[in-house]
Amino acid sequence: MAVKARFYRCEGCGLRFPALEEVGKCPACGGGVVRGGERGLETDAEHPSEPLFPPCSAVLENLRSAWNVGSIFRTADAAGWSHLHLCGITPAPPHPGISKTALGAERCVSWSYHPDAVEVIERLRKEGWTVWVLETGGEPWHPEDPIPEGPFTLVVGNELAGVDPEILSLAHRVVELPMRGCKRSLNVSVAFGVLALGISLRRLTPR
Amino acid sequence: MAVKARFYRCEGCGLRFPALEEVGKCPACGGGVVRGGERGLETDAEHPSEPLFPPCSAVLENLRSAWNVGSIFRTADAAGWSHLHLCGITPAPPHPGISKTALGAERCVSWSYHPDAVEVIERLRKEGWTVWVLETGGEPWHPEDPIPEGPFTLVVGNELAGVDPEILSLAHRVVELPMRGCKRSLNVSVAFGVLALGISLRRLTPR
Repeated sequence: MAVKARFYRCEGCGLRFPALEEVGKCPACGGGVVRGGERGLETDAEHPSEPLFPPCSAVLENLRSAWNVGSIFRTADAAGWSHLHLCGITPAPPHPGISKTALGAERCVSWSYHPDAVEVIERLRKEGWTVWVLETGGEPWHPEDPIPEGPFTLVVGNELAGVDPEILSLAHRVVELPMRGCKRSLNVSVAFGVLALGISLRRLTPR
Repeated sequence: MAVKARFYRCEGCGLRFPALEEVGKCPACGGGVVRGGERGLETDAEHPSEPLFPPCSAVLENLRSAWNVGSIFRTADAAGWSHLHLCGITPAPPHPGISKTALGAERCVSWSYHPDAVEVIERLRKEGWTVWVLETGGEPWHPEDPIPEGPFTLVVGNELAGVDPEILSLAHRVVELPMRGCKRSLNVSVAFGVLALGISLRRLTPR
């Protein structure tokens, strides 16, 4: 469906804001508004899937939050990743929390459920997949580091507990995102996005 | 506070799962469990802030979701970014939705509120900041592209409407994250994270 975003500025309080409908007055102060630019939006476009080859996949080991799972589905789809292995207590589709943040991507990226992430990772290793784990305390990741070749899977773990120590010993590499600031923590779906896009964009366009 | 994560495997259904307390039986099937590894966790650690210099900041132009704002606070803190300019209808602290996803980072990263993002960006340009906008239709971003030098600000826009067209003409550069898959959309806080960490990690450790 094609809809239009319109951009306004209030002559009273100076609020500059977008709206998907025609607007006559400022939502903040009720003052008169001046219309600025506009943009057409494709709200429900579906494109043919173009997964990366060699394939990339992820192992979601005991994620707690359905919103994080949904967000990872959305990012995996955008990054051209082929499959998600949902393990342990990780919520699986159909789930309203996953749908809320996946926005349909949970129907584009294939997935499977496994009670035990260790068994999945042992199998992936035997099948020739390179396994990286994203976990605090790993080697610092740098955006210009060499990226894995061939079939690749990235493991992310529970939001509080982190990745099961038995999995760390199965990984070809454990990486962390170096952090500054006072909290030094990243949402798992944001951290997944940094690595997934960081690898996918370089696989797509090698320099 | 130091707490411990414990990792278990159920001898009945095979579920492998973490827990922050001692667990005697499987939460899925009630079967007996075998204890695996464990990990100490720092749950409320606060570190001294180490912002990047030259500074990085962001302009949040009319974000709708307080959760996205909170998530960007958390990522900005982790990436060593100094300041968020919250503009238009963007929710500002204190806000329960922001706290839910910022997890305290909203108290570590300074912020200011501005009704009109255009005025902020015009001022930042005059003060010597390099302004990039993250928006669909921009130049494809590549993780090995040259990164901005000097004070840098990244503009992200409304989840549905995108960035106000008047802002695009004020930017030194408009970039997009190339996407594959069927949905070709990224959550704004994930997209912010990809670019923020992609730039910060290279500023921290130039190659």
